[in-house]
Amino acid sequence: MEIDNLKNIIDEYLKNYFANKNSYNKTVYESAAYSVNIGGKRIRPILLMLTYSLYKDDIKKVLPIAAAIEMIHTYSLIHDDLPCMDNDDLRRGKPTNHRIFGENIAVLAGDALLNEAMTLLMKSSLQLEKNVLKASYEISKAAGPEGMIGGQVVDVLSEGKEISKEELEYMHKKKTGELIRVSIVSGGILANVPSRDIEALNEYGKKLGLAFQIKDDILDVIGTEEELGKAINKDTELNKTNFITVYGLEKCEELCKILTEECIKILDNLSVDSSLLKELTYNLLNRLN
Amino acid sequence: MEIDNLKNIIDEYLKNYFANKNSYNKTVYESAAYSVNIGGKRIRPILLMLTYSLYKDDIKKVLPIAAAIEMIHTYSLIHDDLPCMDNDDLRRGKPTNHRIFGENIAVLAGDALLNEAMTLLMKSSLQLEKNVLKASYEISKAAGPEGMIGGQVVDVLSEGKEISKEELEYMHKKKTGELIRVSIVSGGILANVPSRDIEALNEYGKKLGLAFQIKDDILDVIGTEEELGKAINKDTELNKTNFITVYGLEKCEELCKILTEECIKILDNLSVDSSLLKELTYNLLNRLN
Repeated sequence: MEIDNLKNIIDEYLKNYFANKNSYNKTVYESAAYSVNIGGKRIRPILLMLTYSLYKDDIKKVLPIAAAIEMIHTYSLIHDDLPCMDNDDLRRGKPTNHRIFGENIAVLAGDALLNEAMTLLMKSSLQLEKNVLKASYEISKAAGPEGMIGGQVVDVLSEGKEISKEELEYMHKKKTGELIRVSIVSGGILANVPSRDIEALNEYGKKLGLAFQIKDDILDVIGTEEELGKAINKDTELNKTNFITVYGLEKCEELCKILTEECIKILDNLSVDSSLLKELTYNLLNRLN
Repeated sequence: MEIDNLKNIIDEYLKNYFANKNSYNKTVYESAAYSVNIGGKRIRPILLMLTYSLYKDDIKKVLPIAAAIEMIHTYSLIHDDLPCMDNDDLRRGKPTNHRIFGENIAVLAGDALLNEAMTLLMKSSLQLEKNVLKASYEISKAAGPEGMIGGQVVDVLSEGKEISKEELEYMHKKKTGELIRVSIVSGGILANVPSRDIEALNEYGKKLGLAFQIKDDILDVIGTEEELGKAINKDTELNKTNFITVYGLEKCEELCKILTEECIKILDNLSVDSSLLKELTYNLLNRLN
């Protein structure tokens, strides 16, 4: 299964998921669908399905769980972009959700996506074996106040003041890292892999998540608005601490390379051939947007 | 088990749930705890536990599921009160969440409560038997875009314009009714009651939810800000359609009585003694706040 092919399957599933709703509440589906289908890279669901595919063939089975993670990611972006949060007008080169649908519907579309993701996870848990519920529980925890939301809280509170290296690392580990880590680990849980591999996948996920965030900070400084499809130098503007302000650009690029190599080393020690995950790892760390 | 006693058990559980958090993210727990413990009537968790108690004795077992519903209810109030939604300054006689913690933390505290409710439901589903997962799935659906969020969307969109009776009924059935209905039905699912009783509880839940909302609309007109602990005449102010504007006060009070009697009739036909639920039904429909 090629990575592009996986992305197409996920795109297709998500496109159909919110289509043809036609009751009084249809605006919330239009708003949710707008952000879900605006052209994300689908990194998290691809990571889940790719990890699963290293061990098992029936990848379509885990598609709803992968899609649920993308819904959670999308809701977090919609709420992040709100005027009371980062106040962003542009996301993936298009107007942000609240710029099209208004703040009130944007809040509700975010709520709906989080809620729908959980409904989908529970539905899959009812239909399939117990591992799905285990993975769902891990995903829910990783998305919550001890995971992604926790990081977001620190991010919001850090605006306009300097924070320590420890707090910066906490913030990024949680805000970006947790959902990436749990995508990979869930792939393993769903494939029922030996605990030795789960631990390795967990380590790989943590390192990849951190490298991904450092790369994000690098791109925020060296990328263009056109390449990234969103405002650049956002952190400087909001006077936020990030990896660049703490370590400098050169050191960050070095850190990124080291983490990538450590990721590859972990993948080399898995009990299965992991060349596809290696390819994706290099893609993510060499990306331009 | 007396109703007041149940309320105390729920209050205690929720008070402890968010206590003693002390990491970088603690603000989100403080914000969530503020709204959770501000003095709600706990109607939904009481309904779940009371329904369960008609059939089974070990009510503490379903406490986490009941608490999860209260968390979902609380998150919806925090987001409802936001400046971009109803822009309310007062809730239960106290400043609304965003007036204390700021809009950004209020959005995140709402997200955290919804997410945490789902995590709690999944955790309970992993620990207990399959009925818990079934109830959790029903709760998640009832809270989502086909349930509570769907009603909220219509509510937001109806501001400043007249809507049809059908749309008004859709809005209230979903916005208030669904979470009340599912609290009752979940109590039945968790107690593993015969399908005949599940259907009766579902009907009872629908009627109670509707009566509850009509009573809310009545109190918005005849109540005082002091009694209700929130702004009154809110719907008139925002030029919203509600049951009073459509049917008038007298007809609404009659409707409320008729629905209450229908509720009692359904409860009379259950396979168990339901006097406690009857007591609660009368309490809710005769309430002053």
